[in-house]
Amino acid sequence: MSRLAVCLVSGGLDSCVAAAIAARDHETAFLHVNYGQRTEKRELRAFHDIAAFFGVTRRLVADITYLRRIGGSALTDASIDIPENSLDNPGIPVTYVPFRNTHIISIAVSWAEVMGASRIFIGAVEADSSGYPDCRKSYYRAFNALIQEGTRPETCIRIETPLIDMSKAEVVKTGVALGAPLHLTWSCYRDEERPCGRCESCLLRERGFREAGIIDPLRPEGSG
Amino acid sequence: MSRLAVCLVSGGLDSCVAAAIAARDHETAFLHVNYGQRTEKRELRAFHDIAAFFGVTRRLVADITYLRRIGGSALTDASIDIPENSLDNPGIPVTYVPFRNTHIISIAVSWAEVMGASRIFIGAVEADSSGYPDCRKSYYRAFNALIQEGTRPETCIRIETPLIDMSKAEVVKTGVALGAPLHLTWSCYRDEERPCGRCESCLLRERGFREAGIIDPLRPEGSG
Repeated sequence: MSRLAVCLVSGGLDSCVAAAIAARDHETAFLHVNYGQRTEKRELRAFHDIAAFFGVTRRLVADITYLRRIGGSALTDASIDIPENSLDNPGIPVTYVPFRNTHIISIAVSWAEVMGASRIFIGAVEADSSGYPDCRKSYYRAFNALIQEGTRPETCIRIETPLIDMSKAEVVKTGVALGAPLHLTWSCYRDEERPCGRCESCLLRERGFREAGIIDPLRPEGSG
Repeated sequence: MSRLAVCLVSGGLDSCVAAAIAARDHETAFLHVNYGQRTEKRELRAFHDIAAFFGVTRRLVADITYLRRIGGSALTDASIDIPENSLDNPGIPVTYVPFRNTHIISIAVSWAEVMGASRIFIGAVEADSSGYPDCRKSYYRAFNALIQEGTRPETCIRIETPLIDMSKAEVVKTGVALGAPLHLTWSCYRDEERPCGRCESCLLRERGFREAGIIDPLRPEGSG
């Protein structure tokens, strides 16, 4: 089995910790996808900073900004506001980008098949996530079945979701325990200079650090 | 159920006939994907010609040319020759673009979810195809399962593959019976002015028309 793994690295906290887990047992190649999200410039910087930290030279940045033309999400459509203080809302939030993870993982599968990599690491979190349908275990099971059907018979690629059952606090603790560069990550959905501290992604991050009893190196001034 | 269907229209023969089938019972929206293939300019012209023929105004052209950077296929990597006279070779041909159809169908699913479409029509042919793994019935079954898992609970989208069991000759006959604009399609993998008549796609097309007993409106001079 190939020891090469493709890591999906958005630049956020979860993918950084998933990459740190992958790096323990694999040579890694890092994939970042620009899907037209508002904070892409900052996320791309985080991606390259994290890749440099791990010494990863195989990097692929792919552009799927056609998702902006498809719209349907507050992350890709500037006419839909990013909600504030929405952690307790039931249902799927307006930041859900329809079927987005399938696009991103498909790129990872194509790249893995061409390079001969055997694993794809993604930092999806089911339990303590935003409720996106493409962050659930059953989704990844179905995707692994699709990979078996849709690639060459000799290809053997599996998606790994090491964080899927963790709370955000456990993700933070795991990252700290592995020495993952959490200070280089970016989570805010809205701003690129300083985390807004109010969007759902900032709130999830803040709660994770708080419950872990660890100070967020990016903590916005005046909070906590 | 929504009567809107997304049709994947490459500009080739099969997708044109699949779109003609979809148009019998659905309002249609046409999707074309540029994945860095050699003959994209000609295929895009065919896409718009076919869309105009069917009076389709909802059109989306998406760019996934990152596949060219991933490479691994004669269709997207100019350093790999397109083989000639290769219909009888066993195995998966070098024109296979790793996991390509998953990228294309993912775009269709996102678009369908945002528009509220319920069906995705794709002209995949299993029996008389080039042997690509992502053209088999089992692949589409697995993809339909993934759509169920990866979209909103209220979303109901299904992939339809009306040609999957047809021979190329049956595809041609069906297209003619439905009045599909076969004269507007483009199949050649290599050339954009005149079909080369020697790549596997030209050979499959030529055999299909011959076995159907129908003259190809694009038949290259001097052949037949």
